[in-house]
Amino acid sequence: MLDMEKRNNAQLGKPALQALEENLPFWKSLEEDQRSTLLNASAQFWYPKGALLHHNRAECTGLVMVLEGRLRIYTVSDTGKEITLYRLFERDICILSASCLIRNITFDVHVQAETDTMVLRIATDAYQKIAAMNSKVQDFTNQLVSSRFSDVMWVVEQVVFMSIDRRLAMHLLEAASMAGSETFSTTHDAIARDLGTAREVVTRMLNRFQDEKLVAVGRGFITLVNRDGLYKLT
Amino acid sequence: MLDMEKRNNAQLGKPALQALEENLPFWKSLEEDQRSTLLNASAQFWYPKGALLHHNRAECTGLVMVLEGRLRIYTVSDTGKEITLYRLFERDICILSASCLIRNITFDVHVQAETDTMVLRIATDAYQKIAAMNSKVQDFTNQLVSSRFSDVMWVVEQVVFMSIDRRLAMHLLEAASMAGSETFSTTHDAIARDLGTAREVVTRMLNRFQDEKLVAVGRGFITLVNRDGLYKLT
Repeated sequence: MLDMEKRNNAQLGKPALQALEENLPFWKSLEEDQRSTLLNASAQFWYPKGALLHHNRAECTGLVMVLEGRLRIYTVSDTGKEITLYRLFERDICILSASCLIRNITFDVHVQAETDTMVLRIATDAYQKIAAMNSKVQDFTNQLVSSRFSDVMWVVEQVVFMSIDRRLAMHLLEAASMAGSETFSTTHDAIARDLGTAREVVTRMLNRFQDEKLVAVGRGFITLVNRDGLYKLT
Repeated sequence: MLDMEKRNNAQLGKPALQALEENLPFWKSLEEDQRSTLLNASAQFWYPKGALLHHNRAECTGLVMVLEGRLRIYTVSDTGKEITLYRLFERDICILSASCLIRNITFDVHVQAETDTMVLRIATDAYQKIAAMNSKVQDFTNQLVSSRFSDVMWVVEQVVFMSIDRRLAMHLLEAASMAGSETFSTTHDAIARDLGTAREVVTRMLNRFQDEKLVAVGRGFITLVNRDGLYKLT
């Protein structure tokens, strides 16, 4: 009985341990007890599509490692308008959900499971404790912050410098690529929230794309009809 | 003669030393030789209004501390469109001009003297050397990066969520505040480059503001006529 429980625990622990080993570049540099601390502070959570994992700095959800699925990180205005900042895929780690770790971060982001998503959450206090003892952990945190800063600069450049038809074409090609299919489910509203624009703008532009035989727009889905034509717009 | 030279050097050295002491929070934690290394790696430069201090990552200009004047940090599209990301004032330190220090920064910014500006430039290699020996230096770098990340998020929120009349009103109030006067010199083009919009949009909106007796628009300058009215728009 005891053996059985142990085995179960060992099995439960294994994916977490493996995920930490494989995805934390500083893992090998940790002492044995530091590894235990991090492992004990890590827990798997499953979120259904659409669930909100994190929505402001006050929470400090912890570092979130994507094991399966996809996260969308976005910001929301007072009036509920949204824009997607970036997405995180398998093996990626969300640092802004642990922004309490980072001084001078003065903005909030929302983190949403964009598909059914399994994550490993690492508690902030344990991570912080290890970071104080090992500069490689701190380096890793800083690299994550700089990467996300670069992602957000890419958003600035897109929003400010690119026309909406170009951005929409890029969005549609990316959505098809994420879905692994020329046809994918979406709504005008979801696209507008992704691009930080008004639904009417998306509708108008999709109608134009449809007139130009670039896409076919259905109720709740879009099919890419002329992928090359869309590429030319980007 | 030698005495004279020494005194001159000492005098030249003093503002640099004072600036480092006063504006680097980790200064007190440095060893004497580390302080010398940083001081010897620091040099004052004067830039006339409009001069470009830095325009891409490949340069690695170094950390730039503003001693007098003002820097504008902005990004530029392939077609020459611009948007201001943030401004740095006296005692502020520009970290993105030393972005070669920071892994995973994948974007370029331009740094321009917006007025006649005196800066202290700290060479990257010396700074990096000290940072490797003192975690407080690294902490300071990280805090600067996070602060600028927060500044850029503010730009995203402004561009995506705020109407152009609101952004223009905020810009005009800020410009008057920086000039210390209700009348300040500017052009429609300069405002457009600041806000990341088209000159025509600025012209149209300024004409509306003028019709509404909020501002008076002259050739090369603007006067705030109804400051409260502008505040109401923000």
